[in-house]
Amino acid sequence: MKPSLAAVLAVATVPFAALHAATAQTSSASALTLMPVPAHLTTGAGAFSWTPSVTIGVTHFRNQRLDDAIQRSLLRLERATGVPRQRTVTTTAASSLVIDVDGPGDAIQSIDEDESYTLSVSASGIKLHAATVVGAMRGLTTLEQLVQASGNGFILPAVDIQDTPRFRWRGLMIDTGRHFEPVEVIKRNLDAMAAVKLNVFHWHLSEDQGFRIESKIYPKLTGMGSDGLFYTQEQAKEIVAYAAERGIRVIPEFDMPGHTKAWLVGYPELSSDPGPYSIRREFGVDDDAMDPTKESTYKFIDAFLGEMATIFPDPYLHLGGDETPGTQWKKNAHVTAYMKAHNFKNTEELQTYFSQRVLELAKKHGKHLVGWDEILTPNLPTDAIIQSWRGVKSLSVAATRGYQGILSAPYYLDGMKSAEDNYLADPIPADTTLTPAQQKFVLGGEVCMWGEQLNELSIDSRIWPRAAAVAERFWSSADQRNVDDMYRRLSVESLRIEADAHTTHLTHEGAALRELAGTEDIDALRTFSSILQPVSFGERYHFQHTSQITSLDLLVDAVRPDPPSRHNSILLVADLLKSPKGNSAARAQLTRTFQSWIDAAPIVSAQMDQSPLLAQARPRLTAFASLGHIGLDALTYLNGKKAPAGWKQKALADLEAARKPEMMLRFTVIDALHNLVDAVQ
Amino acid sequence: MKPSLAAVLAVATVPFAALHAATAQTSSASALTLMPVPAHLTTGAGAFSWTPSVTIGVTHFRNQRLDDAIQRSLLRLERATGVPRQRTVTTTAASSLVIDVDGPGDAIQSIDEDESYTLSVSASGIKLHAATVVGAMRGLTTLEQLVQASGNGFILPAVDIQDTPRFRWRGLMIDTGRHFEPVEVIKRNLDAMAAVKLNVFHWHLSEDQGFRIESKIYPKLTGMGSDGLFYTQEQAKEIVAYAAERGIRVIPEFDMPGHTKAWLVGYPELSSDPGPYSIRREFGVDDDAMDPTKESTYKFIDAFLGEMATIFPDPYLHLGGDETPGTQWKKNAHVTAYMKAHNFKNTEELQTYFSQRVLELAKKHGKHLVGWDEILTPNLPTDAIIQSWRGVKSLSVAATRGYQGILSAPYYLDGMKSAEDNYLADPIPADTTLTPAQQKFVLGGEVCMWGEQLNELSIDSRIWPRAAAVAERFWSSADQRNVDDMYRRLSVESLRIEADAHTTHLTHEGAALRELAGTEDIDALRTFSSILQPVSFGERYHFQHTSQITSLDLLVDAVRPDPPSRHNSILLVADLLKSPKGNSAARAQLTRTFQSWIDAAPIVSAQMDQSPLLAQARPRLTAFASLGHIGLDALTYLNGKKAPAGWKQKALADLEAARKPEMMLRFTVIDALHNLVDAVQ
Repeated sequence: MKPSLAAVLAVATVPFAALHAATAQTSSASALTLMPVPAHLTTGAGAFSWTPSVTIGVTHFRNQRLDDAIQRSLLRLERATGVPRQRTVTTTAASSLVIDVDGPGDAIQSIDEDESYTLSVSASGIKLHAATVVGAMRGLTTLEQLVQASGNGFILPAVDIQDTPRFRWRGLMIDTGRHFEPVEVIKRNLDAMAAVKLNVFHWHLSEDQGFRIESKIYPKLTGMGSDGLFYTQEQAKEIVAYAAERGIRVIPEFDMPGHTKAWLVGYPELSSDPGPYSIRREFGVDDDAMDPTKESTYKFIDAFLGEMATIFPDPYLHLGGDETPGTQWKKNAHVTAYMKAHNFKNTEELQTYFSQRVLELAKKHGKHLVGWDEILTPNLPTDAIIQSWRGVKSLSVAATRGYQGILSAPYYLDGMKSAEDNYLADPIPADTTLTPAQQKFVLGGEVCMWGEQLNELSIDSRIWPRAAAVAERFWSSADQRNVDDMYRRLSVESLRIEADAHTTHLTHEGAALRELAGTEDIDALRTFSSILQPVSFGERYHFQHTSQITSLDLLVDAVRPDPPSRHNSILLVADLLKSPKGNSAARAQLTRTFQSWIDAAPIVSAQMDQSPLLAQARPRLTAFASLGHIGLDALTYLNGKKAPAGWKQKALADLEAARKPEMMLRFTVIDALHNLVDAVQ
Repeated sequence: MKPSLAAVLAVATVPFAALHAATAQTSSASALTLMPVPAHLTTGAGAFSWTPSVTIGVTHFRNQRLDDAIQRSLLRLERATGVPRQRTVTTTAASSLVIDVDGPGDAIQSIDEDESYTLSVSASGIKLHAATVVGAMRGLTTLEQLVQASGNGFILPAVDIQDTPRFRWRGLMIDTGRHFEPVEVIKRNLDAMAAVKLNVFHWHLSEDQGFRIESKIYPKLTGMGSDGLFYTQEQAKEIVAYAAERGIRVIPEFDMPGHTKAWLVGYPELSSDPGPYSIRREFGVDDDAMDPTKESTYKFIDAFLGEMATIFPDPYLHLGGDETPGTQWKKNAHVTAYMKAHNFKNTEELQTYFSQRVLELAKKHGKHLVGWDEILTPNLPTDAIIQSWRGVKSLSVAATRGYQGILSAPYYLDGMKSAEDNYLADPIPADTTLTPAQQKFVLGGEVCMWGEQLNELSIDSRIWPRAAAVAERFWSSADQRNVDDMYRRLSVESLRIEADAHTTHLTHEGAALRELAGTEDIDALRTFSSILQPVSFGERYHFQHTSQITSLDLLVDAVRPDPPSRHNSILLVADLLKSPKGNSAARAQLTRTFQSWIDAAPIVSAQMDQSPLLAQARPRLTAFASLGHIGLDALTYLNGKKAPAGWKQKALADLEAARKPEMMLRFTVIDALHNLVDAVQ
């Protein structure tokens, strides 16, 4: 009754996901799953065994922040390995894990914080050295990533690492204005950031659609401008402290003078028109803005920034400055009179005047300014930092003029580009025209998660794991550009982030599919969704003009950007095409996959009959089965059977038709199928 | 290239899950998925269409609590249907949804709160009437459960409902002492409770393993007794308010005089020995306890209860009283002298004295007492409520003596019994010896989630959906005992709870499996885990003596108690056995299922090679494939082919062998397979 297991045929329903799972069984560098890759790494012989008898010594500097970071790392390792952690940390250098830190680092983590560390693992022990506690945290993260299963236990392969980040500013921006995100969403994303050594949380706190932080001197900001969805000052301080414990700076953004509709609801006097105003539900650029001609506006901002300075200790403050069309200003007699009196030729000059006034106020409260491209006007003081949503070119212009800059344009996650695209975009591209001295002005970059088309359920799946690929771009050397290896490591890091930070980027899809289908039986639906991804922000906005109050509960909200199927299908087809008739493993896997699409289609169709929301994706379902048939046919013709006349041409045409998004959904496997069909003679 | 979908063979990898998904397409009562079932329901003709033009009128009493409840219901409906919700609520009776409430109900929701409501749905409109806001909330929950897909839209079938709960006390206890649960875990469980009309959250806040609520007058309670894991007073108040908004009372429990080790760490003077004490990591009953002979103990409790009374407004307070062995008392000279002086024959009498003193203190702060069975001693005042962990009998004894009681013994979720077992246990069984007058003393019951073998990741999967079945037991009439129909509705309610309360009871398994396997490709592993369930608390404790600091990261922590496979496999086999040769649908489904086990086994085996934690479950894997072969063979022999001599006997013996748990895992399909094999001639 107990057959040999090996004799039984193996099947996998979604084989694409499995293709490049790490084996993690050897200590060769290629099997390591570090992300970001360290600056310098050499592998040695042997390995250190991670057992309950590992002792920990902190031999030099020690404080609560370091102790907490060590305990967090040990706790995660305990969970991953089941090996009980050592709770007692001594000061003895004879420990098996020695952590040697020179000092605390900056009292308030600065842009110049030393994040470098060295980590050396041999069979006899582990030594971590860092100049600062933040550096030690970075090293601990690497240490965690080194742990691998080996036989019945866990090891760290012998390595010598000297690591330091390429860029000092490695950020993630989360827009909490358009859709509010609860405190726990922010916290788990901070944990995920720390896991890949990101060090700036840029917190977009105000928008036309919502003002999200409590002001005690201006209570109507949230009282009338937030729908009750905002962070109390206590919560904001808690988040700042949570970030600081993980070596992450928090830069709050109060976008002005545009994108301020939510401020005006409670304080219409900030505007040049009397109002009344209401929270803007639609997205896009609003006509209304703060009135830069009134002294009372600056008095308000002054007091507000003073209050915010008590919550946010970082010396940088983001004041937006983007997308102010000046429409309201042009229509207003006292504003145009003011412009004339001050010789402002256009509203851009009026905004420059506003920016300079606000910059002075920020300075008064001890803050430097960060702003979007638009603030880069002739008289901008050079201590301001330009964040570029326009692109590398705009950043280069800033650098040549002596402004520090951070790049965001290629890292807009709502563009729904692949991790590959995000990864390959470099803040200082190989063809940069900047001199080495000018390049120093490029501080780094920020991944941006704008909030129009997401909610607290889907946000993690939009950020992770793609942000981890960009985190490597910001940390590792410029020549790290092997996309296949990046995806190999990303698939592991994605799981680590889920396990350690408890982000929902992998669980969300299943929950959303169950809700759509009204049943736990979503295997077929998951097969369908596994080769679908959402269209870009712009494409969706064009198709479905969502506002802040649109329910986001369609299949497009369930599926993930750049799921494993895209890259894995390309690799698998390439593998097959190395010997189209011979590679039986790739052939078998592709055959099962294509057949699983064909098999899943009628089940999903029946579920669509029961669910009007799911049924909206029906146009994609017919193509789904059709793609499976194209794939099976191609495999047949590649195996020797001659394709009928016209088959290839029609198949390629069908693939191109299927490539076009429908119902805001795009197939992930068209490129792979194209390669397959194109190889048919 | 586009084949007819209908012509394609349908497959499902985990067909058990799908078997009883609701079709929800008709308005007949049998297709309704209400849980708990209302007291009185009649179906009518036609249906009300849920469209964007639905208007809402609150015609009589209205307050913020009601408005918030209405908006929460509308938001959930919007998400489920995609139909934009009406945000403006008027007072006009001409609205399509009329909500008519007589008054606010109790200022502080009491045990006598009127929760009844009537709900009438016709093609032309919906009318909800309730005496109180809480009653209206119960009706709104029913209204939400009535909404069904129909064609391209959504309807509510015509019904007339008069509903009122059978029991007044319908609770869920969560032990946050042994493992701390973050605020968001509590909140989402409160949302889930409200979805199934539970009305008491019993919050177990102190244990030997942790003191979990901030005391400002005794800061060392959490300062030294919580590992930093506790609720601030502000958070506790927030949770009380959150519960109240959902019609849920909060009963805090401060277990004493035993189970108090965590108190003694900071305040050893509460005990009869000087200490020092440390937080107990082991579970089980501790020797140490508060000293009932010292006046200072009562002074401490007095001040403490006074402080807690400012946080918890409910007139009931749970003071535990269970499992105090008196070991420490017996060893202590001044305690034994005191017992002698007061004529206490044994430590039970000393505990009775303690209980009476504490009861007076509670009374002083306006509180009645709830306690476990042990407090039921001769002189207990009759306003105390007995919560029975011992069983119905103990509750009957209390009732005959004039004490109110609540039943918990059959609803211990860590017993890992089936929803069926939990469901069929009645606080007043059919064979009760209580008179109707005595039966009135049985207030209801509480589902208990003890915290030894769970953490914040797995807790939801231990509570839900089983607690929903018990919620029906507490609310619906005693004659609701159709298990098949209960499971049909439970499968729908489970998804509703996931979608509406965002509990992780369905997502946890996948996340835990990914972590164990180290890959996203967990289809095979999920096939394996879908027919496994955790053993009971006692069985696990015997096998693996976990303490508070054991990492809970094995397969037993991933799998769910009573997953759909158990009941569905029994139904499916019964379906087949109606005509063993003829029922090709059941036969095909069973064949696919058994084959999927055989196919999954080698994939899981390969994953075990890579994961020491997963590999611990290997003993179950061999049986897994073997069960598949037994099933396939049985299908063959049922179909006419004669079974070899001895096959049946051996197969049954193998099944019984597989029935025994190994590695803390139990197969869910043994009964179904037994039925199948037993039918072979």
